[in-house]
Amino acid sequence: MAGVAEQLRRRIRELEDRLARETGGGGGGGQTQRARIERMSPEVTDSNPYSRLMALKRMGIVKDYEKIRTFAVAVVGVGGVGSVTAEMLTRCGIGKLLLFDYDKVELANMNRLFFQPHQAGLSKVQAAEHTLRKINPDVQFEVHNYNITTVENFQHFMDRISNGGLEDGKPVDLILSCVDNFEARMAINTACNELGQIWMESGVSENAVSGHIQLIIPGESACFACAPPLVVAANIDEKTLKREGVCAASLPTTMGVVAGLLVQNVLKYLLNFGNVSFYLGYNAMQDFFPTMAMKPNPQCDDRNCRKQQEEYKKKTAANPKEVVCVEEEEIVHEDNDWGIELVSEVSEEELKAASGPAPDLPEGITLAYTIPVKEEKSIDEAPVTDSEESLEELMAKMKSM
Amino acid sequence: MAGVAEQLRRRIRELEDRLARETGGGGGGGQTQRARIERMSPEVTDSNPYSRLMALKRMGIVKDYEKIRTFAVAVVGVGGVGSVTAEMLTRCGIGKLLLFDYDKVELANMNRLFFQPHQAGLSKVQAAEHTLRKINPDVQFEVHNYNITTVENFQHFMDRISNGGLEDGKPVDLILSCVDNFEARMAINTACNELGQIWMESGVSENAVSGHIQLIIPGESACFACAPPLVVAANIDEKTLKREGVCAASLPTTMGVVAGLLVQNVLKYLLNFGNVSFYLGYNAMQDFFPTMAMKPNPQCDDRNCRKQQEEYKKKTAANPKEVVCVEEEEIVHEDNDWGIELVSEVSEEELKAASGPAPDLPEGITLAYTIPVKEEKSIDEAPVTDSEESLEELMAKMKSM
Repeated sequence: MAGVAEQLRRRIRELEDRLARETGGGGGGGQTQRARIERMSPEVTDSNPYSRLMALKRMGIVKDYEKIRTFAVAVVGVGGVGSVTAEMLTRCGIGKLLLFDYDKVELANMNRLFFQPHQAGLSKVQAAEHTLRKINPDVQFEVHNYNITTVENFQHFMDRISNGGLEDGKPVDLILSCVDNFEARMAINTACNELGQIWMESGVSENAVSGHIQLIIPGESACFACAPPLVVAANIDEKTLKREGVCAASLPTTMGVVAGLLVQNVLKYLLNFGNVSFYLGYNAMQDFFPTMAMKPNPQCDDRNCRKQQEEYKKKTAANPKEVVCVEEEEIVHEDNDWGIELVSEVSEEELKAASGPAPDLPEGITLAYTIPVKEEKSIDEAPVTDSEESLEELMAKMKSM
Repeated sequence: MAGVAEQLRRRIRELEDRLARETGGGGGGGQTQRARIERMSPEVTDSNPYSRLMALKRMGIVKDYEKIRTFAVAVVGVGGVGSVTAEMLTRCGIGKLLLFDYDKVELANMNRLFFQPHQAGLSKVQAAEHTLRKINPDVQFEVHNYNITTVENFQHFMDRISNGGLEDGKPVDLILSCVDNFEARMAINTACNELGQIWMESGVSENAVSGHIQLIIPGESACFACAPPLVVAANIDEKTLKREGVCAASLPTTMGVVAGLLVQNVLKYLLNFGNVSFYLGYNAMQDFFPTMAMKPNPQCDDRNCRKQQEEYKKKTAANPKEVVCVEEEEIVHEDNDWGIELVSEVSEEELKAASGPAPDLPEGITLAYTIPVKEEKSIDEAPVTDSEESLEELMAKMKSM
């Protein structure tokens, strides 16, 4: 009995100490952070933030979990998918995160995970860094509050992914595209083809109920320009899709699932376990998850993609066994190298009904996602607000004057 | 002595409350909260937290999104899956959330989303409520910091799910099981069979690389006792699985995906869109997502399950068209009502290799998840720490004295 009372008293002392630390210092804001941890430990104690991750070794899933600390990953776009992606990598104890975004937090983003109402008005990268540092002070952060698609920023972006690795002057290990528009995806694609940089792409449809992730190894698998999504294939102007006053729908569920599948693929790729997916789709209406792999297009518009294809061919010819290659150009229908079967035939009709019409595409190319059936009338009736130009757009205009 | 303990406990509650107020959610101390919003609006402005959700109507996905406000959902277990589940429902603007957990936040939980290091030591339900209220003050919260499996608490739990709906005295609309042990799942199952309450179950494997969600409609689909998971089927003592000093592995990715799939199923069920899944699995090693549906077991041990089955039969006989029923007892292999094909044959071997051995099961019953192959030696060598009793356990001990 005395022991129990003693434990209750110890708990009171512990809480009093913490309260003093929290409130004593300088009022709000200055919350206690956990101390940095020099070495990841498998020790099973309540105070070890890495015990459940290091347990992946004991479970036989990952050989060398600590290796996570040696990697630098760039996340471009810190919105509904990118912020959750960054948080997952931070909690997993990634070595370094580089964040790129030029947007600011709005209350209109509160239907997705991560940002909170009191952060409205802050830049997304700044707000994200603040939260993520508190979650895991062991991670290094480098944030850039700009639009990577302007000429000047693109050069800086190229420089940082070439030199912003964990060791200064070394490239990052992986780039994750979590952007919401074609232009930014194309900029990342251009950079990665030029640098031979491996990256993963992600996306969520405008109707909020489907998404995908994709691994792109320049020269080995199709790049973003080899197999363009609907907006390019059908020559639909993106500005028409994202009309003023008509916002895309989004759900924390779909975005959380896509971020989870993306970071899972990242962990499998970096820590060498399981099967890394080249393409994994998510159709929420049907709970349907198609996978596939695509070879690059020999007639790709991007000359650096074609160059990478040549180099990949030479590498394969010189050392045929070392290369993990994409075997199938067409969508995989039968048993395949990844042990996964594509079952799209089953619900093709339902998929179409759920996601809107799909254009005719050349064989071997499928849609990253489709545009939902819109009721034209209701769009016309939707309230139209004034167009708000971003700071970058205004600056670009001023420069060109 | 009882009086002293009572005083100590009161002091602990008081300190926890103050600590929660001071430190609470994401950012600094006394943060501004957004004002409550009386009516969900589709207006596309930066300050409207519901614009992207209301856009689901314009996109033709959901007929009546505002209806989300009329539902009360209970989340049992506010850990790696439950906390993210609660956050997603909060951000979607659910009417009311009831949270049940008896654990406190530890640094060892920081490899999952949601909780932050400064919340260590707080009860999970209290810390969660504090953060969630700031994220969306329009949601009603009711939290219970207790273990639902004790006799007394179970009665209170039954009472709250029967009377804790949006309108006082009405039942909740759905219960979500996000617990990590068999006993708690069985308690929820017992309660739901008795009350005829629809619920969804979720789980993540001990090796962190697979999980599942399941919809249980008493009498219509298999309950948790009809088709028990491995720990029951193979008669393995759960205490052996969760040995002192040997913790389960977990990943923010797998838990985020499972929470996302769970809440997506909830939204589809409550707001009537897409196909609601009876069972959806996630194997992260293979990116494999099996679906299936199971009829209840006529010899189920739970007499209330058998009673619900009788009532369901009567209902079906009286009104055969109104009931959405589970057609297949066996695992679905061919085209089926849900347009989904189970492709487990393809990667059965790989699955086994990835997840460890599976016991022989009666036809029509498959594992919720499997236990990973463990290296016995490494478990024996794992450091064993002293077991730390929770405050609740201590209090329970004191009560029984």
